Amino acid sequence: MPSRYLSFRCSVPWLILLLQALLLIGFFFCFPDADDHDAVVSVEEVRLPIARSVAEFQEFQDVSHMVIFGFGFFLVVLRRYGFSSTGFNFLLMVLGVQCSVLVECLFVFLRVQHSEGLMESLAKAVVSVTAVAISTGAVLGKANPVQLIVMSLVETIIFCVSRCINRTFLKVPDEHTLRHVHLFGAYFGLAVTFCFPEPPPGLDKNRSTPKSDLFSMLGTVFVWVFWPSFNSILVYLGNQTAVLNTYFALAVSAVAAFMLSALTSKDGKFRMTHIHSAVLAGGVTVSYTADINQHPWIAMILGLLGSVIAILGSHCLQRCFNPAFKLQDTSGVHFTFGLPAVLGAVATVVIRVVELGINTRWNDLSRLGYLIFDEAGAFCQTISTALITGLITGLILNTKLLKTVHVSKYFDDQFYWEFPHLSVGF
Amino acid sequence: MPSRYLSFRCSVPWLILLLQALLLIGFFFCFPDADDHDAVVSVEEVRLPIARSVAEFQEFQDVSHMVIFGFGFFLVVLRRYGFSSTGFNFLLMVLGVQCSVLVECLFVFLRVQHSEGLMESLAKAVVSVTAVAISTGAVLGKANPVQLIVMSLVETIIFCVSRCINRTFLKVPDEHTLRHVHLFGAYFGLAVTFCFPEPPPGLDKNRSTPKSDLFSMLGTVFVWVFWPSFNSILVYLGNQTAVLNTYFALAVSAVAAFMLSALTSKDGKFRMTHIHSAVLAGGVTVSYTADINQHPWIAMILGLLGSVIAILGSHCLQRCFNPAFKLQDTSGVHFTFGLPAVLGAVATVVIRVVELGINTRWNDLSRLGYLIFDEAGAFCQTISTALITGLITGLILNTKLLKTVHVSKYFDDQFYWEFPHLSVGF
Amino acid sequence: MPSRYLSFRCSVPWLILLLQALLLIGFFFCFPDADDHDAVVSVEEVRLPIARSVAEFQEFQDVSHMVIFGFGFFLVVLRRYGFSSTGFNFLLMVLGVQCSVLVECLFVFLRVQHSEGLMESLAKAVVSVTAVAISTGAVLGKANPVQLIVMSLVETIIFCVSRCINRTFLKVPDEHTLRHVHLFGAYFGLAVTFCFPEPPPGLDKNRSTPKSDLFSMLGTVFVWVFWPSFNSILVYLGNQTAVLNTYFALAVSAVAAFMLSALTSKDGKFRMTHIHSAVLAGGVTVSYTADINQHPWIAMILGLLGSVIAILGSHCLQRCFNPAFKLQDTSGVHFTFGLPAVLGAVATVVIRVVELGINTRWNDLSRLGYLIFDEAGAFCQTISTALITGLITGLILNTKLLKTVHVSKYFDDQFYWEFPHLSVGF
Repeated sequence: MPSRYLSFRCSVPWLILLLQALLLIGFFFCFPDADDHDAVVSVEEVRLPIARSVAEFQEFQDVSHMVIFGFGFFLVVLRRYGFSSTGFNFLLMVLGVQCSVLVECLFVFLRVQHSEGLMESLAKAVVSVTAVAISTGAVLGKANPVQLIVMSLVETIIFCVSRCINRTFLKVPDEHTLRHVHLFGAYFGLAVTFCFPEPPPGLDKNRSTPKSDLFSMLGTVFVWVFWPSFNSILVYLGNQTAVLNTYFALAVSAVAAFMLSALTSKDGKFRMTHIHSAVLAGGVTVSYTADINQHPWIAMILGLLGSVIAILGSHCLQRCFNPAFKLQDTSGVHFTFGLPAVLGAVATVVIRVVELGINTRWNDLSRLGYLIFDEAGAFCQTISTALITGLITGLILNTKLLKTVHVSKYFDDQFYWEFPHLSVGF
Repeated sequence: MPSRYLSFRCSVPWLILLLQALLLIGFFFCFPDADDHDAVVSVEEVRLPIARSVAEFQEFQDVSHMVIFGFGFFLVVLRRYGFSSTGFNFLLMVLGVQCSVLVECLFVFLRVQHSEGLMESLAKAVVSVTAVAISTGAVLGKANPVQLIVMSLVETIIFCVSRCINRTFLKVPDEHTLRHVHLFGAYFGLAVTFCFPEPPPGLDKNRSTPKSDLFSMLGTVFVWVFWPSFNSILVYLGNQTAVLNTYFALAVSAVAAFMLSALTSKDGKFRMTHIHSAVLAGGVTVSYTADINQHPWIAMILGLLGSVIAILGSHCLQRCFNPAFKLQDTSGVHFTFGLPAVLGAVATVVIRVVELGINTRWNDLSRLGYLIFDEAGAFCQTISTALITGLITGLILNTKLLKTVHVSKYFDDQFYWEFPHLSVGF
Repeated sequence: MPSRYLSFRCSVPWLILLLQALLLIGFFFCFPDADDHDAVVSVEEVRLPIARSVAEFQEFQDVSHMVIFGFGFFLVVLRRYGFSSTGFNFLLMVLGVQCSVLVECLFVFLRVQHSEGLMESLAKAVVSVTAVAISTGAVLGKANPVQLIVMSLVETIIFCVSRCINRTFLKVPDEHTLRHVHLFGAYFGLAVTFCFPEPPPGLDKNRSTPKSDLFSMLGTVFVWVFWPSFNSILVYLGNQTAVLNTYFALAVSAVAAFMLSALTSKDGKFRMTHIHSAVLAGGVTVSYTADINQHPWIAMILGLLGSVIAILGSHCLQRCFNPAFKLQDTSGVHFTFGLPAVLGAVATVVIRVVELGINTRWNDLSRLGYLIFDEAGAFCQTISTALITGLITGLILNTKLLKTVHVSKYFDDQFYWEFPHLSVGF
């Protein structure tokens, strides 16, 4: 049985080659003529663009760092899966970014989206592929590279389509559609992982070691630090309110993580996995409302609630929900990204309704209803698309065509990587 | 005896919850109405703010990265204390930043300080909490989380008060008051650690391993790289002179670290702990004069002297001073941050007096005297406040109320963290 | 025999002291009077400089981070050489930067170069010392600190001279001369390593462990992420085209790395060392043409070719070339930086000739010839200078004066660092 993927392995490079060739051809047709955004005329006109381009480049760089490095090392939680966690995350991110840029370009061609600079498009693509990083966390250690590549491409394309639906039919502004990235990634990943067979109960390779936890902490801190840049891409450029709200939400979230971790463990000790999940939950929750709430304390309460829902969710889900549905969410993306995103989406509706209600003195009920319909519609469309397409993708991934890995080979670097080392083991 | 903290442990989360609730209420009253620094009028006016806000954001991000990630991993020096070093540093930083922002806001309310943007206030708060990170280094492994939290809050508040005294009575400009942050942090931490019982001599948990040293090197390099951003917050925005002076001082400091490490070890080998301390000493020393000396070579000499004082201090202090005072300065903050800061403060007086003397041809002795009085006053006020309040804080921390940890449980992650790992040990 | 360096070791600090003193004296004479680039007159004039200085500072910071942190940890590939890899890289970088700034200043004094701001000069110096980091990779574990310091100073000076020849005689623009930095570093390092005796075949200290590979991955990802900043310093400021081209080239290069690694290993497994080399090859290849090709797909093809040449080169060189020439290129700089740089240089000529040919409808053959002569001249001058001076440096380094390390002491931290740890070994 374990030889199913083994014999298939030699075809992996050809799949990657094919994909990269297709992407290259796509780029050839999409960006045929020269950009002329460097053709600036007067010094007077160049000033604003320089400041803007500096800000754009900085945010792009920060988010790229967060996605490649932060998520890569955030996923180093399993004791024998460090190479695959960072390596495959790297591969999927660079494939996903190219694919996402191409799909956006195709949408511009099909006139369902207005054109924008390649730099801006690239920054959005890097934000989009966060969904792939999150989904990867759910199937971590269970999917082989081919399955991961297929999953990431399908997910990138469907997320672009889902954003396009929100933009076109529900008139959500383009940047706002990106906010559902955590929601989409988490539920898509969960639906995919539902189709994978469960690992045998005696397997100890899905544990962490103190060292892998320390590497994961390293990645978590990176994601935490760059989160304000991430959320400021989701609004418009140079928005300090979004940065400040995100920072305060993250700060409260980190404090609450320690509090709740001590409260829920049996003798008041802290648990590292709780800290990893909960410090990030605040950033996810506040990403929906980072620009609209003008009071830092609202962001702080959202950060607190995000952290609470992440840690309570971690207990409830791992005891009741996951065994019932035979789910195994390896790095806990459901409670780290999924539930906080749901909370954030609910919070947006509440905050925007209250704001509009106060402004119109609760007289304009039709606008209120329309607002609720819009927000709820975008949320329901995203989550249902994620679940349905995720389930279909999961079923496709587990067909014989893609040679699933036998459960005894789960969570093991040595199945995918050469180990020319004398002493094996992490 | 070891059960003193054990039974107390379950009350830790409630303390954190109480604190966070107080901070939240504080934010609710301090920032009740919307910021309107986004309300810009014309394109003409927006240009400078965009460039400024980009620069502000970049420096804030760099310093946040340095404090959370850099100091967190810089403190991973003990072989069994990696989780606590990074984890507790994270918790203290996010609590300290919130507390510092609130205290500043209170000072604005009491009209002892002029108001400024929340972003600027946040960047200064992140710089301020460096004092807490440094003090944590002194008591590393000996204080339990409750003691650390109490210490960090007291320290943050007292540092704000000390800055306020310097600003109000000694007319030191606001940014310049922040320069004493290393001095304050180091001597506050030393005074606190003076009150803690010494670990038994046979204990080997306060050693490092090659791996913990490598993680600490990782953190050190981060702190080193971001130091120019740190020092440029201490002056005014976008000041290239401060960046250049800091970089050259750091460079010389790093070279001197290798030189002195080989010179002072018994057979010309380098010692990693020397390198960790001495590469940072240059940044501390030059932080006082980064903007005023116009010649890079002065900054370079300061960097060299900082490194010399750090390594010689490390030898003298560890042999004579620490045993005499029964001090145990776990990560050597006295010679890494304390002595170089004293040197930097002395250097400021000398440089400014010489500069003023040359400009006035040594005729205006009253201005010279006034200048010396001001600088020396700010220095003495800061260091004496740090020592006295540190001592009081240390005594309070070691009362029965806060359940000190038994010395046999010092330097051990397992006392605070759940280890669900098969193989324990770092 | 192993005592040759041992007895010499005590003179290492004096060498470093002498060097640093010379550098300090150099700075004293080179930068005697104050910079006045902070003396700005009107608000109207300050706008552009602020945006520029923010951009300059950001790029300088990124490249400094990449060189000190990224290359430092990229070199942590050997199982017992982690301290030396990061530590010595740090020392050489800070020495090299100071030396490079001084040499540039001397050239300004000798009127072979026009003057520029210290910040710009510093950023270029940081880019220049990448050559030293690359050469260090070639002799990693074989050279003692004295040899490394001598090598890095000689290399820094000769690279400045080589750039000056390209600028003066071949009229290459100043920024473009920096592009040969990878080419120069790789071939200089190879020529130096040719003169070192080969390690005995049974030695197992030049292997990697899973952990050292993970640390190296950490460094590689850092270098990868900051590469767009690096290449944008090689053109003019704020050039988005260079950033975009570099990013896409790097992305394709990373994808191709996985593809080729699986293709060339015996059973379709990935090999970590392949990934490390090949993900960076794209950035090297595209550095020559990042600003001139207006189509991302050309950059992508260059990234793909860079990756191909890196991995094929790794196989061919390690089997045929290296044994034939008795070379031991410890961290594979020949195929990681050398061959991709050659490819990049060839690609520049082709792209620029085709571009000029199309623009002039292939009528102006003299200009075409002149262009080819210029580009090929600069390339040949750089590579031959690197090889010849590298060989001479290697011969000097292996004279008795510098006390070469015995081959049995190769690749060992304990020969240079104090290990006060209970358990030795990485």
